[in-house]
Amino acid sequence: MSTSARIPLLLDVDTGVDDAIAIALALRLGVFDLVGVTTVAGNVELERTTENTRRVLAWLGAADVPVARGMSRPLVRPLRTAAAFHGENGLGGFEPPPSPAATYPETAPEFMVRTARERPGEVTFVCVGPLTNLAVALGLEPDLPRLVRRVVIMGGAYTVPGNSTPAAEFNMYADPEAGDLVARSGLPITFIGLDVTHQVVLRRDEWEALEVASDPAARLVREVCVHSFVVRGIERFHLHDPLAVAVAARPGLVDVRESGVEVVTGLGERAGETLLVDRPGLPRHAVALGVDADAFGALFRSTLGLDGTPG
Amino acid sequence: MSTSARIPLLLDVDTGVDDAIAIALALRLGVFDLVGVTTVAGNVELERTTENTRRVLAWLGAADVPVARGMSRPLVRPLRTAAAFHGENGLGGFEPPPSPAATYPETAPEFMVRTARERPGEVTFVCVGPLTNLAVALGLEPDLPRLVRRVVIMGGAYTVPGNSTPAAEFNMYADPEAGDLVARSGLPITFIGLDVTHQVVLRRDEWEALEVASDPAARLVREVCVHSFVVRGIERFHLHDPLAVAVAARPGLVDVRESGVEVVTGLGERAGETLLVDRPGLPRHAVALGVDADAFGALFRSTLGLDGTPG
Amino acid sequence: MSTSARIPLLLDVDTGVDDAIAIALALRLGVFDLVGVTTVAGNVELERTTENTRRVLAWLGAADVPVARGMSRPLVRPLRTAAAFHGENGLGGFEPPPSPAATYPETAPEFMVRTARERPGEVTFVCVGPLTNLAVALGLEPDLPRLVRRVVIMGGAYTVPGNSTPAAEFNMYADPEAGDLVARSGLPITFIGLDVTHQVVLRRDEWEALEVASDPAARLVREVCVHSFVVRGIERFHLHDPLAVAVAARPGLVDVRESGVEVVTGLGERAGETLLVDRPGLPRHAVALGVDADAFGALFRSTLGLDGTPG
Amino acid sequence: MSTSARIPLLLDVDTGVDDAIAIALALRLGVFDLVGVTTVAGNVELERTTENTRRVLAWLGAADVPVARGMSRPLVRPLRTAAAFHGENGLGGFEPPPSPAATYPETAPEFMVRTARERPGEVTFVCVGPLTNLAVALGLEPDLPRLVRRVVIMGGAYTVPGNSTPAAEFNMYADPEAGDLVARSGLPITFIGLDVTHQVVLRRDEWEALEVASDPAARLVREVCVHSFVVRGIERFHLHDPLAVAVAARPGLVDVRESGVEVVTGLGERAGETLLVDRPGLPRHAVALGVDADAFGALFRSTLGLDGTPG
Ligand SMILES: [Ca+2]
Ligand SMILES: [Ca+2]
Ligand SMILES: [Ca+2]
Ligand SMILES: [Ca+2]
Repeated sequence: MSTSARIPLLLDVDTGVDDAIAIALALRLGVFDLVGVTTVAGNVELERTTENTRRVLAWLGAADVPVARGMSRPLVRPLRTAAAFHGENGLGGFEPPPSPAATYPETAPEFMVRTARERPGEVTFVCVGPLTNLAVALGLEPDLPRLVRRVVIMGGAYTVPGNSTPAAEFNMYADPEAGDLVARSGLPITFIGLDVTHQVVLRRDEWEALEVASDPAARLVREVCVHSFVVRGIERFHLHDPLAVAVAARPGLVDVRESGVEVVTGLGERAGETLLVDRPGLPRHAVALGVDADAFGALFRSTLGLDGTPG
Repeated sequence: MSTSARIPLLLDVDTGVDDAIAIALALRLGVFDLVGVTTVAGNVELERTTENTRRVLAWLGAADVPVARGMSRPLVRPLRTAAAFHGENGLGGFEPPPSPAATYPETAPEFMVRTARERPGEVTFVCVGPLTNLAVALGLEPDLPRLVRRVVIMGGAYTVPGNSTPAAEFNMYADPEAGDLVARSGLPITFIGLDVTHQVVLRRDEWEALEVASDPAARLVREVCVHSFVVRGIERFHLHDPLAVAVAARPGLVDVRESGVEVVTGLGERAGETLLVDRPGLPRHAVALGVDADAFGALFRSTLGLDGTPG
Repeated sequence: MSTSARIPLLLDVDTGVDDAIAIALALRLGVFDLVGVTTVAGNVELERTTENTRRVLAWLGAADVPVARGMSRPLVRPLRTAAAFHGENGLGGFEPPPSPAATYPETAPEFMVRTARERPGEVTFVCVGPLTNLAVALGLEPDLPRLVRRVVIMGGAYTVPGNSTPAAEFNMYADPEAGDLVARSGLPITFIGLDVTHQVVLRRDEWEALEVASDPAARLVREVCVHSFVVRGIERFHLHDPLAVAVAARPGLVDVRESGVEVVTGLGERAGETLLVDRPGLPRHAVALGVDADAFGALFRSTLGLDGTPG
Repeated sequence: MSTSARIPLLLDVDTGVDDAIAIALALRLGVFDLVGVTTVAGNVELERTTENTRRVLAWLGAADVPVARGMSRPLVRPLRTAAAFHGENGLGGFEPPPSPAATYPETAPEFMVRTARERPGEVTFVCVGPLTNLAVALGLEPDLPRLVRRVVIMGGAYTVPGNSTPAAEFNMYADPEAGDLVARSGLPITFIGLDVTHQVVLRRDEWEALEVASDPAARLVREVCVHSFVVRGIERFHLHDPLAVAVAARPGLVDVRESGVEVVTGLGERAGETLLVDRPGLPRHAVALGVDADAFGALFRSTLGLDGTPG
């Protein structure tokens, strides 16, 4: 596909193991023009999510993609990371070499707002971290819903339990107020929650087979998952963020329900819970409740060269 | 109906014009054994809602019904009354004579908890003010859902706009945190919101016809509505609280949807909004979305002697 | 001292290791008439704090003291216990036999309000758990500040770091909204915070010497501290709650600053922080910033028979 | 003073009557190099505060000063304007002609962060609206305290009552969470609250004397105050925002206390209250508690040509 025909993509990340894999997928799918990556505090602190993002891009030969650093904390809550899950450095201990690229000067909300204004109606946002940057961008440019083509968000747990609390998925738990502002906005959103991401996994045997991989994307997958399969001892690694990227390329991978979405805020124990709500006046979004896991798996493996095919 | 066959009823009020009418309806329907009335701050301050309740009961010949004074403020928010709506004294300026009864010593949450414990599974609660008392009672007795027979709550706006804000009905707006704790509890609740209470009204011509009424209940309706029809100049007075009482007697008056209910808390502008939510693990309640307004109207008028029939 | 000359005392607890010791001290000091003990969820869940309180009283020969069960959760936040500190059962694993007393029917806020009304200006409250019960009692009886003689509260960290977070002491951290409502009320409060309680300790050698103690109070101190000295391996056990009881008997044990007190609420990381604030209109309380640790220690040891003297 | 010797100034406004006068003062004092003006929603909505700022600058011959539009709403609360005070258009009904300048593309937080990074340690920020922009800028650049020379904030009421509520001054009331994040940061802040701004006024007779003024700055003062003196009928107009600008030029105009500052957040009625707090670890700021009102008045009048002297 010629670059000009590609989908202009802005990727908002808190890299993070599965964010790293999502970046690789976005680069390798061949359907996106990655106009920039914005970073936010989440899985680990902002300095680390930004540095990880820069290194991952460089590792994948994409050091020239702008990396705009964003919010270092949720709107009003203290930062609660998931370092136990992603390893202290956020990449499961894997340290790609530093990026040769110069630091990009713009902040993430500015990058979001400017990109959307310059290319009204064209750019797809895929947000796979806490929604702080997008909430600030909406505060700065209330017209954003009209300026963005589409937003795919990895976040929420709509018909299943959460993973940070019984009620809440991590990205929504980390910044419920941001999630609420985003969900109540008129942005055209597809929500990819645990309902579907818990169905798409990298199995231990698939991961073990990567020991001999040479392709940088496949090697990246191998290395960032060491912490999960070895230290944490899991058998199946959930591909949360990669699924959101894949859906931006192929919406048909998921079955969606059109519904209003509310995110529980406040001081109670359900903060970050995501609710499907039908209420007059509430913007309706597409919420993924089913996924063609086989189709995603085939796409994922072939794109990243996990099946021996060069990506 | 013999007293022993009547439904034991505890009525929680913030009297309030329509609360006064609801009390009259509860006394006159002839199906309830009114074991007590509990008061809460809401439409006006607690001292007034309590005094109003005592005077209204005495006016109706029921000064012996215990009136247990409850919470003087919402759980954590400042009290915001609706005095503009109910008149400064909460009864639209009408002042029935003082009650001869002694002040009842127990507080409202204690009265709720004790009554429920003493008669497990027997007592119906009808709550027509902010839900502060019931939230405290739940905090004091987490077993309350098992001890109470049924709860009918006037509160919320599920498929229609609110009346305190575009999102929120007054009782839920006044204490959203209490509403949330109650709705998430396992109490067997029927919610009577603006969806149905806006369909049941006292018309100006009906009110005018009461000028010559002599029955105390009819006179009460006449007097407490002067402020609404004359000062505020409305044409139709909504019978919010009386509908909740009527439904406790005749559940078939409303069509309900079984659903989870969430009340929006937090710092945003939608605090107090009520949401119909289907989510695994969320307690399901009966939410009234339709009402047989004619049947209610006939019951209401005949019971209170508004049609010339002695109540 | 004749019973009639004693100080009427209401003790609000979340028993808890140091609460148990505080109960013993209150009974043995000989200056209090313990009119009742109220319980609240805090160190452990309400069922446990209540059962522990009943058993501790019975162990000390005071099974006839009413134990009124109170709030099972903070006003609006989820309950966060300190079971790691107090052991799973809240008494460091120690299980005194069940109390022979019947369950007391009144709830804690009711007990507080009724007691204060019946003996206006006479009763001292000592509150050594999260302040949920007292905040509810204030909501139910805004006149409480005029009805209570004095309130001594174990809570806060005014010039030193917290113990639950860098900012917040446990009791204030557990229910900051309750703490805020209490501190802003006109109640005549003496705050006993970590500033002083960290200066009063039971040393390991003192604890070890109790191995041979036979007095029930001394044995109680011995048993409830096993978890702390053995499992947790500390060298000095802080006598938080006992100091509050001692100050109610002998105010001169502490040096206080007259000051307004605010408790940080909201969603930020400093929730539960206590602030000394001088501001017109803000009620002023006595905040203990110094303590005569030797005098307290002598009183504590002699009263509980820790020095070989029968208590 | 040569431009190069001037103090680089960034002015953050929610124009607003007194903001307009503050802009005039900043331009005319001759000691500032006004590198940019950032706008925020507050007195009126963001579109209006931005348009007002552009028009006021153009009216004063400074259309070339960049105006960077910022946050259209507080961090998490709904926007509550003060349109009754500032008139519907925010300038008391006065409408200067549109600015000939092109719209400036950068957002306010980006402008703040970039300016501070480009000239580390050089630029003074004067913030005279709700602190939303500055709170976001701190979230985007936690190093801001090291990069900014000084911040002067009009906001708070430290020893006097508020003007939006009994507790809170408008700018802090409008976005307490932003105020709290700013006050807890290490930014070197001078707070100019109602304690001092209520002492600096434009009297009715001074305003009336401006009827014949021809200087644009004096005419601006005349026109924007018509609403206050005529519609609202006040006798003394408080020069809140101009005092903050003056203090940035002449710190000696105010007497300050070094103190920690906390802003009350949460759901209670005191949200937005500002507290002087001495607590270990809390950053200390300069809080103005006294002002040389005569010196300010003389400076203000001579600078803006209110005394017949051309400004
Ligand atoms: Ca992520
Ligand atoms: Ca009512
Ligand atoms: Ca305790
Ligand atoms: Ca202003």
